[in-house]
Amino acid sequence: FIAFIYLTRPAWILLYHSSSPPCSTSTDTGIDYNPKQMAIREKVFNTIISCFKRHGAETIDTPVFELKETLTGKYGEDSKLIYDLKDQGGELLSLRYDLTVPFARYLAMNKITNIKRYHIAKVYRRDNPAMTRGRYREFYQCDFDIAGQYDAMIPDAECLKIVYEILHELDLGDFRIKVNDRRILDGMFAVCGVPDDKFRTICSTVDKLDKMSWEDVKKEMVNEKGLSEQAADQIGEYVSMQGGMDLAEHLLQDQKMSQSKQACAGLSDIKLLFSYLQLFQVTDKVVFDLSLARGLDYYTGVIYEAVLTQAGVASVTTEAQNGAPGSTEESVSVGSVAGGGRYDGLVGMFDPKGRKVPCVGVSIGIERIFSIMEQKVSAEKVRTTEVQVMVASAQKNLLEERLKLTAELWNAGIKAEVMYKKNPKLLSQLQHCEESGIPLVAILGEQELKDGVVKLRVVATREEVSHTVDIHTAPHLRTI
Amino acid sequence: FIAFIYLTRPAWILLYHSSSPPCSTSTDTGIDYNPKQMAIREKVFNTIISCFKRHGAETIDTPVFELKETLTGKYGEDSKLIYDLKDQGGELLSLRYDLTVPFARYLAMNKITNIKRYHIAKVYRRDNPAMTRGRYREFYQCDFDIAGQYDAMIPDAECLKIVYEILHELDLGDFRIKVNDRRILDGMFAVCGVPDDKFRTICSTVDKLDKMSWEDVKKEMVNEKGLSEQAADQIGEYVSMQGGMDLAEHLLQDQKMSQSKQACAGLSDIKLLFSYLQLFQVTDKVVFDLSLARGLDYYTGVIYEAVLTQAGVASVTTEAQNGAPGSTEESVSVGSVAGGGRYDGLVGMFDPKGRKVPCVGVSIGIERIFSIMEQKVSAEKVRTTEVQVMVASAQKNLLEERLKLTAELWNAGIKAEVMYKKNPKLLSQLQHCEESGIPLVAILGEQELKDGVVKLRVVATREEVSHTVDIHTAPHLRTI
Repeated sequence: FIAFIYLTRPAWILLYHSSSPPCSTSTDTGIDYNPKQMAIREKVFNTIISCFKRHGAETIDTPVFELKETLTGKYGEDSKLIYDLKDQGGELLSLRYDLTVPFARYLAMNKITNIKRYHIAKVYRRDNPAMTRGRYREFYQCDFDIAGQYDAMIPDAECLKIVYEILHELDLGDFRIKVNDRRILDGMFAVCGVPDDKFRTICSTVDKLDKMSWEDVKKEMVNEKGLSEQAADQIGEYVSMQGGMDLAEHLLQDQKMSQSKQACAGLSDIKLLFSYLQLFQVTDKVVFDLSLARGLDYYTGVIYEAVLTQAGVASVTTEAQNGAPGSTEESVSVGSVAGGGRYDGLVGMFDPKGRKVPCVGVSIGIERIFSIMEQKVSAEKVRTTEVQVMVASAQKNLLEERLKLTAELWNAGIKAEVMYKKNPKLLSQLQHCEESGIPLVAILGEQELKDGVVKLRVVATREEVSHTVDIHTAPHLRTI
Repeated sequence: FIAFIYLTRPAWILLYHSSSPPCSTSTDTGIDYNPKQMAIREKVFNTIISCFKRHGAETIDTPVFELKETLTGKYGEDSKLIYDLKDQGGELLSLRYDLTVPFARYLAMNKITNIKRYHIAKVYRRDNPAMTRGRYREFYQCDFDIAGQYDAMIPDAECLKIVYEILHELDLGDFRIKVNDRRILDGMFAVCGVPDDKFRTICSTVDKLDKMSWEDVKKEMVNEKGLSEQAADQIGEYVSMQGGMDLAEHLLQDQKMSQSKQACAGLSDIKLLFSYLQLFQVTDKVVFDLSLARGLDYYTGVIYEAVLTQAGVASVTTEAQNGAPGSTEESVSVGSVAGGGRYDGLVGMFDPKGRKVPCVGVSIGIERIFSIMEQKVSAEKVRTTEVQVMVASAQKNLLEERLKLTAELWNAGIKAEVMYKKNPKLLSQLQHCEESGIPLVAILGEQELKDGVVKLRVVATREEVSHTVDIHTAPHLRTI
C-alpha cells in the first residue's frame, strides 16, 4: 500500500480536466456559484488568507445587520444603495455596505486601540455599477487593516507589501501600485487656486483620470464645476507627474507646492514610505502618482490603488471602464484590484468622546480577481473535489467489501469515494474518476480478496500494482 | 538557521495562553465575534470541512436573498420568522431561512440530478428560540447533502458516518445518534389508531419527548389534541423502544406494526442501514429510537439526530431545553448537535414539471458546537494569530535592519511580525510575544550584524542560539 504515500501531500493543485466551463446561475435574486467557481474561489481565498496570516493578522466578524443610523452619513451619495430591512418591529436595520464602517464601529464600541485584523465577508448594495458582469447585489469584500498609534509609514508600508505579495502569488499578470496622499492632493488644489469648497468635487473629477482623458477631465472641471482654466492647467501639470522617492524630493523643492504645509507633510511621508518599500523590496511595482485620487471622504493620509497593466485582462474585466472616451491611451488602468489608504478619523466618529484611533488598510478586489481567475482557468480544467482514490470493483456483489475498504480509507484520513450502487459497472466507475480527476482507483475482485490484496490503478496511465490490504500496518496513511 | 525547521509544520495547534476569555460583543443588531472566537470557529470549520472533503463533497454558494415566494409555504408556522427586505422597488426579497430550500431550488433550476455538496453559510431568522444565548438573528448552518437516485441506504449510511467522524474528531464528549424513519412513525400512528388528519400534530407532540416526560406528552395528546387514551398508550409503548438491527427485525414481526406496509418498508430500510453502519464501524453510537420525530414536514424516509450525552455539557448549552418539566430523567437529550434525514420530494416542488430528485442530508449544529468549544477552551488559552517569529532588537536605530529581515522571512513564507516603532523596548517586544504566543524571537544587535548572525531566542525557555543571517541558503525555510 506504499502507493498511498504520495496521497499524503495536500491536494493543492485544483486545476484539472473536466467538461464544462465555470458558469454561474444568475437568479432574480443574486448569483449561485457552482462547484467549479467555488473551487477557484477557495484557491484565491487560501492565497490571500495565508498572506494575511503570514503578516500576523487576526480575524473578526461583525453582523450583516447594522443599525440604519450607523451607516447613515458615511457614504455620501452612495447611501441610496444601502439595503434596508422591512420594518417588522424593533430597530431599523440595514445590511452592511462595506467592512470598514463596521470595523470602525467595532473598535470604538470595544475600546480597542490597536489591532491588525482581516475580515472577509459579504456586503450588500442595491446596485453596484463598478462590477461589469450583471448586477451584484451581494459580493465579498476582503479587508486588511492596522489600527493603532505607531511610527509614521511603517504599517502603511506593510499594507503595500501585502498587496504586492498577494498580486504576485495570484499570478494575475503584471501590476502597478499607485500611491498618493490626500494631503498632497489638498495642498495641490490649494496652491493651484481651487477654492476650499471645491476641493471635494474637483477631487472626484481628478479621480476619473483612469477612465477619461485629461482633456475631458479638464472640460468637466472648467465647464461643469466652474474652475478657472488657469487653475485647471496647473492641476493638469501636477497630475501628469509620476515617479518615486525622487519625485517627492523634487516636489518638496517645487516653488508652488512647497508653499503648502499639508503638501510638504504628505511629501515627506511619501519619501519615508518609499524608504521602507525599498527595504521590503517592492519598489519595482510602486509608483508615486499625483493623479491618484480615491473618492472616499474618510481618507486622511496616504492612499493607494493596485491596477493590472496587462492588456489581455482589460477586455475581460473592465468593459465598463474602458468604454469611456480616452481609454485608448497607453497608460490607462485596466482594472483596479486593490485599494486603500489611511483613515485616522473614522473610529472617532463612533466614539462618544470622539477618541481617535489611527487606521490604515487595504481592500482586495476579490470579486474582480475571481472573475479574472475564472477566465484564466476556463481553458484549463478545475477539480471540484480533492478525492484521492475511488474504491471500485469489476465484479458483482462486492458492495460490502467496497464499503468496508472505503471506511478504512476514511478512517486513515484518505479522501475516498465509492459509488452508491450495489453493482456498478467498472467502466462507469472509471469514467467517474476521469471526469472528476480522481488519480487512483482501488479495484477489488474475488481473486484479490482471496489473496488479501487490492489492485491499485493509476487512472491517467492505467498502471496497476497489487498491494496487501492491511492498511493498518502503513502508519504513513495516518499522517494526513 | 536550522531552528526554523520546526516552524515549517502547519500551526494547527491554536490553543495557547492569553489573557481574556472569549467574549462576544452583543450589539443591538447581532453579535460581533472577536479574534479569539474566530480562532475557535476556524478550528471547528477546518475539522468539519476536512471531513466533507474526505467524503468527496463539492461546495456551492447561493445568494443570501431568495424571492419571497420561494420561501413561502416551506416552513409552516415558522414562516413568521423570515426576514423580508423593505420594498425599495424591484422583486420582493427575503433573507434565506435555511440552506436546504435554496439547495433544492438550485438543483431544480440547474436541472442537476446528482451531486454531493456541502454548504456552510449564514441564515437569518427574526428570532431563534432554540438558541439559548441571546437572540441570534444570523447564524451559520453547515449542511452536507447527497442528491441522486442511488441504491437504498448507501448515501444515508454515509451521512451517519460523517456525523460520527465529525463528533468524534471535535472531541465534544460522548454522543449518540438516534435514527428513525418517517414511514415507521406514520405506520405506527396508523396502527395505533391515530386519524390520518392528526398524524402531523401528534408527530410534533412526540417530537417533544426529548424535552418532556412521557406523562406530559400523553397529556398533550389526549387533552389538547383529542387523541383517545388507548391510542396514546399504544404509541407510548412503541416510542419507548430503542435498539439496533434486532429491534427492526422484532418490529417486522410485531403483529400490529407489520400490518402497515409503510412501517415495514421503513423497518426493512433500517435493517439495511444498520448493515452498512456495521461495515462503517459506527454502530456503537447509533441507536434506532422510535421516539425520534423531527418536526420538518419535508422528510420522507430515514431521519436522525445526534445528541451529546455528557452531563457536563448540558448546563452549558441547553438551559432552555432542560428547563422543561421532566427533563431530569436520565435519558434526556442534552443537546442536539446534528440532524437530518431523507427528503425525496422537496426538489420536485421547484421543478416546473415536478421531477423529483431524491436527497438525503445532514445539518451540523455548528453554532451550538461553537458555544461548547468556547466553554471548553475558556480555561485554556487560545492563540489568535499563527505568528512564528518576532523580529526584535535590543538596541536603538535598527528599524531598517528589522524591517529588512522581516521582509526576508515573509518572502520565505515564514509568519513574522515586527513592531511598528522606530525604537521599541526589548521588554515590550518580548511581552508581545508572550501575550500572543509567538514561540520565537529573532534579536538583532550591532554585534550580531557585524558578525552576520541573528540571535534566536525561544520565548518559553529563554534559550538562545546564534545563526548566520543568510536565510537563502536554508531551502527548508521555503517549504512552508
